[in-house]
Amino acid sequence: MRLALLAAAPAFLLLAAVAPAGATETRIPDRALEQAAQLRERALADDTGWKVTESLTTEVGPRLAGSEADARAVAWARAKFQELGFDKVWTEPVTFPKWVRRSESAEVLGKHAQPLAITALGGSPAGNVEAEVVRFADLDALEAAVEGSLAGKIAFVDYQMPVARDGSGYGKGGAIRSRGPSLAIRKGASGFLMRSAGTDNHRVPHTGITRYDEGLVPVPSAALSIPDADQLARLLARGPVRVRLAVDAGWDGKYTSQNVIGEFTGRSRPDEVVLIGGHLDSWDLGPGAVDDAAGIGITMAAAKLIAQLPQRPARSIRVVAFANEEQGLHGGKAYAAAHGADVAKHQLAAESDFGAGRIYAFNTGAPEHARAATQQIAQALAPLGIEYAADKGGAGPDIGPLAARGATWAWLAQDGSDYFDLHHTADDTLDKIDPAALAQNVAASAVFAYLAAEAEGDFGSQPKAAPAPPAR
Amino acid sequence: MRLALLAAAPAFLLLAAVAPAGATETRIPDRALEQAAQLRERALADDTGWKVTESLTTEVGPRLAGSEADARAVAWARAKFQELGFDKVWTEPVTFPKWVRRSESAEVLGKHAQPLAITALGGSPAGNVEAEVVRFADLDALEAAVEGSLAGKIAFVDYQMPVARDGSGYGKGGAIRSRGPSLAIRKGASGFLMRSAGTDNHRVPHTGITRYDEGLVPVPSAALSIPDADQLARLLARGPVRVRLAVDAGWDGKYTSQNVIGEFTGRSRPDEVVLIGGHLDSWDLGPGAVDDAAGIGITMAAAKLIAQLPQRPARSIRVVAFANEEQGLHGGKAYAAAHGADVAKHQLAAESDFGAGRIYAFNTGAPEHARAATQQIAQALAPLGIEYAADKGGAGPDIGPLAARGATWAWLAQDGSDYFDLHHTADDTLDKIDPAALAQNVAASAVFAYLAAEAEGDFGSQPKAAPAPPAR
Repeated sequence: MRLALLAAAPAFLLLAAVAPAGATETRIPDRALEQAAQLRERALADDTGWKVTESLTTEVGPRLAGSEADARAVAWARAKFQELGFDKVWTEPVTFPKWVRRSESAEVLGKHAQPLAITALGGSPAGNVEAEVVRFADLDALEAAVEGSLAGKIAFVDYQMPVARDGSGYGKGGAIRSRGPSLAIRKGASGFLMRSAGTDNHRVPHTGITRYDEGLVPVPSAALSIPDADQLARLLARGPVRVRLAVDAGWDGKYTSQNVIGEFTGRSRPDEVVLIGGHLDSWDLGPGAVDDAAGIGITMAAAKLIAQLPQRPARSIRVVAFANEEQGLHGGKAYAAAHGADVAKHQLAAESDFGAGRIYAFNTGAPEHARAATQQIAQALAPLGIEYAADKGGAGPDIGPLAARGATWAWLAQDGSDYFDLHHTADDTLDKIDPAALAQNVAASAVFAYLAAEAEGDFGSQPKAAPAPPAR
Repeated sequence: MRLALLAAAPAFLLLAAVAPAGATETRIPDRALEQAAQLRERALADDTGWKVTESLTTEVGPRLAGSEADARAVAWARAKFQELGFDKVWTEPVTFPKWVRRSESAEVLGKHAQPLAITALGGSPAGNVEAEVVRFADLDALEAAVEGSLAGKIAFVDYQMPVARDGSGYGKGGAIRSRGPSLAIRKGASGFLMRSAGTDNHRVPHTGITRYDEGLVPVPSAALSIPDADQLARLLARGPVRVRLAVDAGWDGKYTSQNVIGEFTGRSRPDEVVLIGGHLDSWDLGPGAVDDAAGIGITMAAAKLIAQLPQRPARSIRVVAFANEEQGLHGGKAYAAAHGADVAKHQLAAESDFGAGRIYAFNTGAPEHARAATQQIAQALAPLGIEYAADKGGAGPDIGPLAARGATWAWLAQDGSDYFDLHHTADDTLDKIDPAALAQNVAASAVFAYLAAEAEGDFGSQPKAAPAPPAR
């Protein structure tokens, strides 16, 4: 996950306001609800989600967008959809700038000389900087620095993000990564360091994409592991600290990857789809187990379990393994561009991109005429320990662009309490996933997608004009 | 800690057998016991141990024996003893071969290509090996391999050491690191990999010294992090795996470091000492907080607290910051060589080199005539949650050589449940230490050393012939 809409506004309220007045109320037939109960129990006892996640993390490993492993991941996803018996499997091209990490290091110089564990932020240019470090408690403090005051200095933003089940601490932590480097450059800095946007205490720094505002000359930018940020702060408390920051990385042309898509065809309304998915790429530091092999495993397995029912649901179940989410939602944007005209055919769209912790809440962005159906789905999910959160949630990062075109989102809230221990680090490995929690995710995804595909009536997806790009 | 005597034999039984018959029973005066109770409470509320540990880990950072930081650590220790007001501060030279780590990497080749997080074992030579990996469940399995069967292969010993409060799992795990490479070479291997001797699940491999038997040509030897060992095992379950292992490291001449010693002079028997200490060096991957800055902090603080009592104890309190423990107990051996003739002057000797977890047990190797005094000390320690473990314990690594010469050991057993999560890794950082547990250690060390220094009568130290080196 890059920058999820973790503290998303209650978007359904907005959508509800534009729902067609007098639309027929959407309902889920009793027969489907009975079937869903069996599906739920079968999914809890099934290990397909685990096996798929194990396969991707083990066989492909880290899969940075644009790297050699990107192509292997695409081939893997195509083969896995086929192995699982999906009726249709295809790819759609996604082109994006390629960023390459070659090396990175940092060290304290002088009488307290010692190495610092860092990772370059995605998008960082190459560069070697040897300079005094100036610490800022957070982004506001950096913003308050006098223009030019950081000339010849390395800015260090030392904000510790808090743990939260819904990941809301990432709002502030992630913003430092996105906006910090440009802000530091405006103040004159020749390098940028941040305390990782993470909640662990290990020597595994958290990478992630950053962007430099137009017109600025980018400077090497990196994140320190949490213990290294502690250490640097302790050293700074003793007096001035000089650091050497060396990054070899940069943009290197364009690359075309693929959204890989698998679909089980619906029995009576095959053109209408319930879309679920995750993203296929990961950062390069680790094999991306919780971010987001789990999402691929959960959604592939959910679809497979639905297809194993005595009969297919009315609508098609489409699973999308999105390309290059990490560096700018490229797969999600390409999907929305390719399918924007068909937005009304997307009954509901949901993604799994917040790890593999248990689902604790559910909602959709459906308008009033489909609230009863949303509640029916919530009731079917309740035995999994999932509550109906009628005023919460929003589209995840990869379905965001499609939702912006008018597709109705569904939201399965994952417990992200430990997600930011692992997010974008070398530590995001398979062992961090609890198979039982993963199976609960599969069960939730399967029940939700199946019922949405069996609903009589729609969930309000309808074309909207593409929104203006967000203001900076 | 290198290879502690974690599952030590009940050495006191042995010593008791050679104690002089009819020796006067050693006793601790009531006045000293009263004083000790106050000392204990003051120590629990004191943060000197924390401050010293913070200072060493922060200001010196990683301090590999023989590195530039070794000299800074010696200067730091000398200055810290002086700052704490020790009556005497001196150094004693310790010369040893210097090992240098320059770089290391490993990667799976072929269709599952991916990097592996490794660290070279201390003592590993340089070398680049590209070979098929052969997995062994443990050292016995490697030992059972046919001679020559590993020609052109990399041996991988995949033993997972278990968690244990007393660290006993390290017996088998540590032996793989010590003996595995030589065993693999005998079977023909051109490289050696092992699952780290650790209990964590992070991408922080555990280093540590290895040794190559005489007459063998050393091969590059490294430890995989636990998740990387999992990953390699999963890949091997799918079929043959080729790995490229590249190590640039090696022995590079000799280096002379120093044991740094501070002493508070006893009021009536200043020539007799109670020795406490830890080791000053660490591995290079991290700042060695639990291994063994904590030991330095605990013992310096304990001595300082004793010196703050209204009057000095009868005997001197000596704190030794041992040089280069990690690569072969060089400091401990040098100390024993320099002071072996004075072994009887060492009333009791104890060290702190198993982290900063709470002390849970106490014993000494004293003979029968000092068992009552040992029990008196145990009673004074009991309010700290410490039990008298009359048949357990032994000399730690650095006092081992002195104990072998006849000095009586004392044992303050630290809870090492999480010690091997951190041991010899980049993750051994200050944040892993609980200040309250550290203070409990200081209290235990202070009470023990004070009472030993006030005891009327001895604890049985007497010269022994230096033992023959252990058989392989």
